[in-house]
Amino acid sequence: MLIEKSCKEFIDILASASPVPGGGGASALVGALGTALGSMVGNLTLGKKKYECYQDDIKRILEKAGILQTELSDLIAKDAEVFEPLSKAYGLPKNTEEELAIRNEIMEKALRDASSVPLEIMKKALEAIDLHEELAVKGTKIAVSDVGVGVLFCKSALMGASLNVFINTKLMKDREYALKINQETEKMLEAGIKKADEIYAQVEAAIKS
Amino acid sequence: MLIEKSCKEFIDILASASPVPGGGGASALVGALGTALGSMVGNLTLGKKKYECYQDDIKRILEKAGILQTELSDLIAKDAEVFEPLSKAYGLPKNTEEELAIRNEIMEKALRDASSVPLEIMKKALEAIDLHEELAVKGTKIAVSDVGVGVLFCKSALMGASLNVFINTKLMKDREYALKINQETEKMLEAGIKKADEIYAQVEAAIKS
Repeated sequence: MLIEKSCKEFIDILASASPVPGGGGASALVGALGTALGSMVGNLTLGKKKYECYQDDIKRILEKAGILQTELSDLIAKDAEVFEPLSKAYGLPKNTEEELAIRNEIMEKALRDASSVPLEIMKKALEAIDLHEELAVKGTKIAVSDVGVGVLFCKSALMGASLNVFINTKLMKDREYALKINQETEKMLEAGIKKADEIYAQVEAAIKS
Repeated sequence: MLIEKSCKEFIDILASASPVPGGGGASALVGALGTALGSMVGNLTLGKKKYECYQDDIKRILEKAGILQTELSDLIAKDAEVFEPLSKAYGLPKNTEEELAIRNEIMEKALRDASSVPLEIMKKALEAIDLHEELAVKGTKIAVSDVGVGVLFCKSALMGASLNVFINTKLMKDREYALKINQETEKMLEAGIKKADEIYAQVEAAIKS
């Protein structure tokens, strides 16, 4: 499992010509790191008298963040899994009409699978951005910079994964399906970037004030 | 060493209330991941006939990226190292004028050290963004999305580290020094964000075209 590798090894494999992990899996990892920073802020707020009124919220945020960290970590492996069939599909023969038809069908299925994982990463990154929105208000002020860094990472995960949706939908023959996925992706991008930028601006203002 | 821990462990420690790693060290890690994606693009371009005219550049980029990955990885540990004295300085007594004077002096030194590491992370992230600028032009087009994801990560590292400069300069008594560091930080932010956004837009346009 990629997630069990040391950070050093992960960086080395990522840097190599090996097809996985690539930008999709790395986006899931960065999303997990961003969510973990949110958890850190939650854990530093937990049990603090000054933030007594938010304790129930903090507990809920921590539980949700823990789930997201696991889900995003799992998506690193899933992204690698769906790349393999796609990579194999490229190598299929296309000398006859029949071969081409078979290749197209297998390729189309592989492209759908390969776009489904970064879509899932985007959904999780969006949920993590929502948690940071709450943490910017309810989290301990001594860790406000970590809310800012956390939301930056989640935004990068969202945008990084979106590129991995677009490279796959671009090659799909079923343009109607591709368009539907692209629209879903654009919608998540728009909402997530706007919210993440607002949270970051809020953190920056708090630090610079 | 934090970099030797598994990705899963790193995420778990980051999520905990443990003071290190925090947003600074995590920014260095994300910068290293971004640089590694640049290396991947370089490695996929290496020896490819279609990109023959860029082979010398690619070799130079790969060498530089390898150095940056090591430097950013080392900065994860360094960020943790400089946090400890700062954390201790907060706990020093301040009951008498003399105690306060000693505390202030130790604190000021600790704040300078604690801001020097994120400043270094920013410098390295900027250099990594420059490599992605070249890779967007000279790297293999089959990995163009990875240039986009890589530059997103380097931008996040730059911005994330900047927040960790600002939280430290804010507390410095020597306002002249603090202002100087803040100006240096703002300058790097401005240049890096502009360039990273341009590279990302270029990648996005290539993917969506």
